[in-house]
Formats: sequence, structure tokens, C-alpha cells
Amino acid sequence: MRLANVRGRSVIVTGTGKGIDVAAASANAFGPDLPSIFADWSAFRSWATAPTERDADVRFELEELGAPSPEPAQILGVGLNYRDHAEEAGFEIPDELPPVFVKFRSSLTGPSTRVQLPTGGHTDWEVELVVVIGQSASAVKRDQAWDVVAGVSVGQDLSERVSQLAGPAPQFSLVKSFAGFAPVGPWLVTPDELDDPDAWRSAAR
Amino acid sequence: MRLANVRGRSVIVTGTGKGIDVAAASANAFGPDLPSIFADWSAFRSWATAPTERDADVRFELEELGAPSPEPAQILGVGLNYRDHAEEAGFEIPDELPPVFVKFRSSLTGPSTRVQLPTGGHTDWEVELVVVIGQSASAVKRDQAWDVVAGVSVGQDLSERVSQLAGPAPQFSLVKSFAGFAPVGPWLVTPDELDDPDAWRSAAR
Repeated sequence: MRLANVRGRSVIVTGTGKGIDVAAASANAFGPDLPSIFADWSAFRSWATAPTERDADVRFELEELGAPSPEPAQILGVGLNYRDHAEEAGFEIPDELPPVFVKFRSSLTGPSTRVQLPTGGHTDWEVELVVVIGQSASAVKRDQAWDVVAGVSVGQDLSERVSQLAGPAPQFSLVKSFAGFAPVGPWLVTPDELDDPDAWRSAAR
Repeated sequence: MRLANVRGRSVIVTGTGKGIDVAAASANAFGPDLPSIFADWSAFRSWATAPTERDADVRFELEELGAPSPEPAQILGVGLNYRDHAEEAGFEIPDELPPVFVKFRSSLTGPSTRVQLPTGGHTDWEVELVVVIGQSASAVKRDQAWDVVAGVSVGQDLSERVSQLAGPAPQFSLVKSFAGFAPVGPWLVTPDELDDPDAWRSAAR
């Protein structure tokens, strides 16, 4: 399933620029917004297994999409998460625990957006894999990790590098959290759409 | 006003272990939980100007208090915020922009709590002034800062120092965000209760 945030409403994407409005198709059992769907994710997934083209009553443009998870309790970023970037940034490769930072929820925006860059800085960008966690979870075993994942998307992690490196310790949250510094989209793709969710493991070696 | 989270309900504290249940006293116009009150803070403050002892129908123990703002959109921490601590931690004194980090919302707990310390680490603590921001705000001028503050409280910032310093860059979020690592309370004190909210400026010199 591909789940989009179209003008604030949950839409199951069925083709180019079209989809099913979840609240309308479920007689308001789910939605209309995305956060309420994540709060009831398991029941929603059961309902959403068989959407029909007949219900595909929404048309949308890319510019109308918002972040697929617009109100997460937390946005965690894993820093120095691939070798080339760690070397480019002048950091050692982390042995075990990479730096985990936070982007503020107020930095979230949709995939097609206009970002006001802070003056006097140097704004850098990185493309990221975005993983939306669908339920409360802690101490999850590696081979059960996909069970708690609602889906994946693509994002950009914008950072203002001058402030990041100015102080006595590098900043990993504030300088990555100006308004618009976390574009995500176009939509959420549930893990069952992926041929092999673990394919990255061999690719990363 | 002193506003407490008693067993998940908003209570205006009127004396030792007693207070006014906001939802009951307002005929459910406000509350019962704290987050809904912050969402309507200005109207709540107008209503709450004249609570009467007659309404003081709640009794509570310290152990029944939760964090006064249990679901903030974000918890920001200002690092190296006083000279002795920066020197103790081995960092230079920040010139202008101190390190701003985030504690995860899932680390919040009430003032009287039992924290499970992570094994194999070294958990440190710091007493902090907690400032609850009561409305959306950006680029606020210094002399208008108190206008956006709902109130202040006291908290502890627990940190696991071994993981904090293990990687290529010091961690300021993950290691401060184990469950229970952000006790706050006993309650929120609104700025009008303070003789001079800016007294710290002369005291800090």
C-alpha cells in the first residue's frame, strides 16, 4: 500500500495522481487525517487490504502532498550512517553506537516545498531513507524490527553547517530543524510492497 | 496559579495536597487532561483567574503527580548552560549559541518516580529549570519572551555518560532519553506567581 497525505487527508494511492480517500471509503471509520490512522494502525491495515478502484475518487498534484506522518511523537536521525559521509564530515567511523539526533517536528513538510534558508549560514542537504514506526516499541530484536514499521518513505535532512560546527560541541538538532528542513514524501510505502526489505544488508557491504 | 497533573487530570493547587479539579469546576469547558488545556491556554487562563476554595475538591499525594506538561511537541535542552558545569564536563564555554539538544517525550515522568538505570553505564543527573512554552512562537524578542511562557517547573536531566562520550561525536539526545530520564514537577507555576521573573539576570552575574 502507498499511503499519502493529500491536503491533510489520508489517501491510498492507486495510480498516478489518484487514490482512495480513506475517511470517505471507510464511512469515517478511519481518518480523515494521518495521525489518527497511525493511532489505529493495525485495524486500518486489516481494513485496507482490498481497496477497490471504484473508490478511487481523489485526484491530486504532487504539490498538494504533505508529509506522510505529519505529527510523529519523535523524529530520530541516525548520524554518520554511511562511510563516505562520515569521512566527508571529518568524523571517525562509529564503532557501535552512531550519533542519534532529533529533528523537531516543526521542521516537517511535504515533498514539494519552498524552504526559506537561514541567512548567514551554509545550508547542506542529504537524501535519507525515512522509516515510520507504527506502534510503541522498545528493545526490539533485529529480526522482528520490520514488525513495528508502518512503512518507509524518502526525505531530505537539511542542516545549517556554520551553526552546527560553531560551538564547543557540534550541534545535531537545532541546526537541522529550521522550518521546512525535513521534507518527506511523496508517500508512505508499506513493507509488503518491498521485494526484500533486507536487501540493503548485502548492498551495504 | 499552580497547575498540577494529578492522576492525569488538571488540578489547580490551592494548598498542601489539595486543589480544584479543572474539568469538574469548569463543567468540562477545560480539561480533564493537561494537553487539552495547553491547546486552549489563553481561554483557560481567563477562566482560572478566580478559583474558589469551595471548589477545592481534590486531595492528592506527591506520588500521584505526573509531569505537568506530559505531551509537549518538543523538549529542548540548553547544554553547557552554566560555567561550572561546562568546565566540569570539559567543554569550552559557548560564545553565543549553546548546544541545544532534545530529550524524547517518552523520557518524561512525574516528580516522584522510580527510574530503571541502564546497565553498564554511568547515569548522571542535573537539576534544571523547566520552562513550558504555552503557544506557537518563533523569532520572539527577548523582552517579550515571558508572554509565550505558560509557566515554570523543576526537573532533572538524567544522562548516561558512557554512551554519551563513546562515539565520534558526543551524544546529547539518545543518552538523555531512557524511560524516566526526565522527571518534572511537582507542578507548573505561572509567571505571575514570581516576584520578578528576571531576577536571575542579576543573580547570574
